[in-house]
Amino acid sequence: MKNISIIGSTGSIGTQALEVVSENREALNVVGLSTNTSIDLLEQQIEAYSPRIVCVMNGDAALVLEKRLKAKGSLVEVVTGIDGLIAVSTASEIELLLTAVSGMIGLRPTLAAIERGIDIALANKETLVAGGQIVMAAAARKGVAILPVDSEHCAIFQCLMGNRHEEIKRIIITASGGPFRGQNTAALQAVTLEQALKHPNWSMGKKITIDSATLMNKGLEVIEARWLFDLRRDQIDVVVHPQSIIHSMVEFIDHSTMAQLGMPDMALPIQIAFFYPDRIANNRQALDFSQVRELTFEAPDPVTFPCLQLAYDALDAGGSMTCVLNAANEVAVAKFLNKEIHFLDIPRINRQVMEKHQVIANPTLEDVLAADAWAREIAMETSVNR
Amino acid sequence: MKNISIIGSTGSIGTQALEVVSENREALNVVGLSTNTSIDLLEQQIEAYSPRIVCVMNGDAALVLEKRLKAKGSLVEVVTGIDGLIAVSTASEIELLLTAVSGMIGLRPTLAAIERGIDIALANKETLVAGGQIVMAAAARKGVAILPVDSEHCAIFQCLMGNRHEEIKRIIITASGGPFRGQNTAALQAVTLEQALKHPNWSMGKKITIDSATLMNKGLEVIEARWLFDLRRDQIDVVVHPQSIIHSMVEFIDHSTMAQLGMPDMALPIQIAFFYPDRIANNRQALDFSQVRELTFEAPDPVTFPCLQLAYDALDAGGSMTCVLNAANEVAVAKFLNKEIHFLDIPRINRQVMEKHQVIANPTLEDVLAADAWAREIAMETSVNR
Repeated sequence: MKNISIIGSTGSIGTQALEVVSENREALNVVGLSTNTSIDLLEQQIEAYSPRIVCVMNGDAALVLEKRLKAKGSLVEVVTGIDGLIAVSTASEIELLLTAVSGMIGLRPTLAAIERGIDIALANKETLVAGGQIVMAAAARKGVAILPVDSEHCAIFQCLMGNRHEEIKRIIITASGGPFRGQNTAALQAVTLEQALKHPNWSMGKKITIDSATLMNKGLEVIEARWLFDLRRDQIDVVVHPQSIIHSMVEFIDHSTMAQLGMPDMALPIQIAFFYPDRIANNRQALDFSQVRELTFEAPDPVTFPCLQLAYDALDAGGSMTCVLNAANEVAVAKFLNKEIHFLDIPRINRQVMEKHQVIANPTLEDVLAADAWAREIAMETSVNR
Repeated sequence: MKNISIIGSTGSIGTQALEVVSENREALNVVGLSTNTSIDLLEQQIEAYSPRIVCVMNGDAALVLEKRLKAKGSLVEVVTGIDGLIAVSTASEIELLLTAVSGMIGLRPTLAAIERGIDIALANKETLVAGGQIVMAAAARKGVAILPVDSEHCAIFQCLMGNRHEEIKRIIITASGGPFRGQNTAALQAVTLEQALKHPNWSMGKKITIDSATLMNKGLEVIEARWLFDLRRDQIDVVVHPQSIIHSMVEFIDHSTMAQLGMPDMALPIQIAFFYPDRIANNRQALDFSQVRELTFEAPDPVTFPCLQLAYDALDAGGSMTCVLNAANEVAVAKFLNKEIHFLDIPRINRQVMEKHQVIANPTLEDVLAADAWAREIAMETSVNR
């Protein structure tokens, strides 16, 4: 029986992770859960999974939930805010923390868990994009495993099984290309929010769906991969593969290329992170090659989708720059979701904020948080020059 | 430095293996080589690789070579016949034997090498098709590795790295479909030998090229895989993949599918067998996804290509039946290459010989050799009823 906490348990990854728990009750025990404000869903999750401790980030919502639980005679401990989130993440009995929160809020709890020697199942992009250097150094020092919970990095993780790091020539991250694949900048002038929210293969949250449409998502994955697998920038390539069947690949020094294929289903990366090094049987859908029929590949279009190049540029700049790109992008996407800016303004804002940033080469956690706050402020203020 | 012998060194795989040796002179030392009759090429190979012992199967040719070498003052030992082949295969200083001979002749030397604790790089199909049960039991008893030297089994071998046997759901062997993919039986009535010898992706010997055209080659690979990876018949599937880029796949119990991709080049399986568990750098061609563009898949056509089903039938019958199928097929293909029979007669002969065979469930080596001889005789005699 493995004791786990899931922070961000009411989100897309969190709820799917609890489905995996449901399918493996004899092997997984939920100690802690967390939500920002979704206390109704969290209350159901408490019923179903009997955690010892839950965090509601919003203090008012936490009080409401606590009251409800008391009325039912529940003994669950309700905590709140960042300290509460850290308490859920570092509960003494847990062996694994799934960080499925979105945003920079994931960084501190993850580092706190690593310091306690708790393995990390990582679904929070910011942890590595903003704090990759710090997090991977801490994990190495503590001998803690960082297990990727997204389909691309999990694919690479599987391709690397049984192989040595020095045998890697390059990794090839696959990209669906998003809803606007094959279009040009002129065509994207007319893009609506509704169009950008329609992803061809995956059903995900709004932020990540927009990031898929701009290819920023792929850029953030490039940055994550750099840290997760300790690669040079020139060892990380992206290929557009619209069917999303090959989830990513690794080419080795002998020119053998390993690929991981499957239906688009986040249950697999979640399950692999929960049970590594074991694979466990499930009732998920298998790949049917009589259905697949063809897999196609094309180079990403750097002109129409400049966000991918911005990620490489941020890696080249190094230090705090990847954190700045991520923060600027978060603000820009929020503005787009709020219909304040146009789809094509997202990379413009990102670039303008990056251009204004003075890189800190080896940032501390405080430097990273400060760079993040700075970039958000600048992105908020940035008026788009078209 | 690894000491190796290569039997069948003047054949297609043998010469490619020696190219790999040339690229890795500091790591590989050739102790023994062999040929049937190609003494000119063997003489060049002796110059280039300085083996201690060579076998020429044909006694007269052996004498000619021995004379030539003596005239040059060479100290190379020349041996002949099956005893000579076994001497090359079991030379006391070797750690690895590459069996690249074709036909049943490979079985005894391989078993002799296994008894001496020598790892086997296996390019000889008959070893497992005819003697799978015996060979794998001997290898297990002696703790000897059987490393597959063909692109499909080497792909599966790589997909399995870092995973446990009980995690395998099934393997998916890819088939190019050969030169007659998409045609029907009526169209194949008119097939010429020259058409059958044109393989779309691989340049290989004549026998294996015809086996690719009938899909018998894929059937033999199914039988080999059953033994090599200790699988049930229902765990082995075949999918037609005309581009021959994915060399084969493994689906695991969690529905994750691993695939190995690469350019069609036998150097990779040879190299992996020589250096396992290490991968080593080479100057071979990398896969270029801007060139690949699309990978397609389709089910094999069991009506037009009955040889694949015959292989499954032989596995179902068990024991000596796979040896009988292989022997019948060898005779049938020889007849076809000799323009004695029609392309469509190959499966007919195979089936007729199988129907006449009384299966020996747990054959000894002698039983296997007897079944092989019996099947060849029956196949020779079989007049095709159209």
